[in-house]
Amino acid sequence: MQVNGQDYHTIWLENDQVKIIDQRWLPHDFRIATLSTVSDCATAIKDMWVRGAPLIGITAAYGMYLACLQANNAAWLEELEAARSELYNTRPTAINLQWALKEQWNAIDTDSQEKTKELLKTNADRLKQMEIDRCEQIGEHGLKILRDLAKAKNGKPLNIMTHCNAGWLACIDWGTATAPIYKAHQEGLDIHVWVSETRPRNQGFNITAFELKEAHVPHTLIVDNAAGHLMQRGQVDLLITGADRVVQNGDTANKIGTYMKALAARDNGIPFYVAIPTSSIDFEITDGIREIPIEERDASEVVTMQGSKDDQIRTVQIAPQDSAALNVAFDVTPARYVTGLITENGIIQANSESINQLKAALT
Amino acid sequence: MQVNGQDYHTIWLENDQVKIIDQRWLPHDFRIATLSTVSDCATAIKDMWVRGAPLIGITAAYGMYLACLQANNAAWLEELEAARSELYNTRPTAINLQWALKEQWNAIDTDSQEKTKELLKTNADRLKQMEIDRCEQIGEHGLKILRDLAKAKNGKPLNIMTHCNAGWLACIDWGTATAPIYKAHQEGLDIHVWVSETRPRNQGFNITAFELKEAHVPHTLIVDNAAGHLMQRGQVDLLITGADRVVQNGDTANKIGTYMKALAARDNGIPFYVAIPTSSIDFEITDGIREIPIEERDASEVVTMQGSKDDQIRTVQIAPQDSAALNVAFDVTPARYVTGLITENGIIQANSESINQLKAALT
Repeated sequence: MQVNGQDYHTIWLENDQVKIIDQRWLPHDFRIATLSTVSDCATAIKDMWVRGAPLIGITAAYGMYLACLQANNAAWLEELEAARSELYNTRPTAINLQWALKEQWNAIDTDSQEKTKELLKTNADRLKQMEIDRCEQIGEHGLKILRDLAKAKNGKPLNIMTHCNAGWLACIDWGTATAPIYKAHQEGLDIHVWVSETRPRNQGFNITAFELKEAHVPHTLIVDNAAGHLMQRGQVDLLITGADRVVQNGDTANKIGTYMKALAARDNGIPFYVAIPTSSIDFEITDGIREIPIEERDASEVVTMQGSKDDQIRTVQIAPQDSAALNVAFDVTPARYVTGLITENGIIQANSESINQLKAALT
Repeated sequence: MQVNGQDYHTIWLENDQVKIIDQRWLPHDFRIATLSTVSDCATAIKDMWVRGAPLIGITAAYGMYLACLQANNAAWLEELEAARSELYNTRPTAINLQWALKEQWNAIDTDSQEKTKELLKTNADRLKQMEIDRCEQIGEHGLKILRDLAKAKNGKPLNIMTHCNAGWLACIDWGTATAPIYKAHQEGLDIHVWVSETRPRNQGFNITAFELKEAHVPHTLIVDNAAGHLMQRGQVDLLITGADRVVQNGDTANKIGTYMKALAARDNGIPFYVAIPTSSIDFEITDGIREIPIEERDASEVVTMQGSKDDQIRTVQIAPQDSAALNVAFDVTPARYVTGLITENGIIQANSESINQLKAALT
């Protein structure tokens, strides 16, 4: 997608270094960062220079390549194992991280570091392209839903609500939840997007709004609290989000707040679709609410807020200094509130039967 | 209640001027402001130096007294009428404003400005004391619910969630939703309060957290998005909020975001009580969703955030400069999601029958 009219991916290799769009400063400042080592990659994931399930996975994949490139010749395999472990332990909820690391691990030729260097590079490039293709396919499948809903609007704009950022900046290109939106916009469908802030880290205002603005898609910002009211008043036709992990029974882990938006959608008869590449599906877990590990992050993200003032990026304290705070990063929406999953392989129901069928088709 | 160990009401008369706790700077700075004219009172309501349904009403009541005090002798009744209109048009959703203005209007002796001065002062004092007494009664009635729920906790703390600020700073003293909490804390019940941020104006972090901290009530701050997750995980025993207006069928207008919290409470079998003085009940309206006017405020409240940095209070921009934003201040929770109303006259069901009975008892 484009920023200031120039084409970008969120991550790319340049002279054997990893380049990323450093999302910590958006929307105030658009910066490119260089990751030179596997530890740089781990830091970028952990401290959210990059975020979004698909992008986390690809960053880890390139991290493995850097680790191999820089490994001490004798102990290179042990170093790769340490690199895998370091990357694995950055963030617990998104399953893509584990998927990408497994894919890279399987690509290793234990007999040769030289060969493995090339294999890990080629494989990371392949995984990256795979995520781009998956997102574009999600866009094509989701577009059909948007076209159908738009028909019923009789010339009024189709109002789509999204939460957090499941846009191209969470992926490599296109995005997951945003892919149908970008496809619809390119096709000339009359759409309007409600962008919810997504406290505590404000990915809605910081990143989704930035993306939509750059792509000239009509949108309006709302606080997270406003979602239910707009749905109740008939101002939302469709809720669409990404997910960090969908499990075998259809339970869906996504950014904290998704669950309550899903409840409001159900209460008002509004469809709720989850757009995910199949790399975000965890076929091993059968009960999302009990089994998906939910990341707790530092309380400082709750009680402070980053913004800009006088062209400087500043962080201000927004609560009493000595009140405790809890920062839970994700929640789980029970499968019964999910209308459908939009994958690169088509739209399926969020239940065990459909997900098992998908698994069988993939293997 | 106390601030820094000293007793305060939120509003009081001093040498024929109105003194208020100016809530715009909390929790960073505790300031007292002076309102010298009816226009000062209108500004204080409109720009939210004071907020909360009961406090808005009492501020308007004292505003009427100031108007009478300062009115031109000949046209004093016309000036009072203009004052009433100015105050009436400050904020549309809370019914208490209309109630207090009506009470003051009925107190006027059209034959004598001198007598009316005294009457409006006495009546404002009476309404103020009435709100204090109502809140304390709400506290006593609500305390019974907390005692019952605490019994089932077997020595673990009772986890209460609240939204926005329906505390003593929204009233004169005690608060509505917080009154049972303060009563329970004074009685030594083991309670813990989840304080939700309440974007866009953050009354949870700014005001409720400040109140609870000053009263030494254990509490933890969460973003609004986290409410559903905590309820799903069994970490909430009771949801209790105030309301800006409850109507005849039990539909309840309260700070934006209440509706989704009510949905999450229902989805997880958690009781949701609304604590209100009867002055917050609108017996005329029978359909809250269709008929309660919902205030839209300036979009700047959505895209900026006030906080402190280096001991200075600063406002930062937290979204792209040129994205549109919508700021809806309240939402309506359908009566079916409200477990009960805690009023100064006892706990009643949120339906027409119970509310009609209450109306009959009041008249």
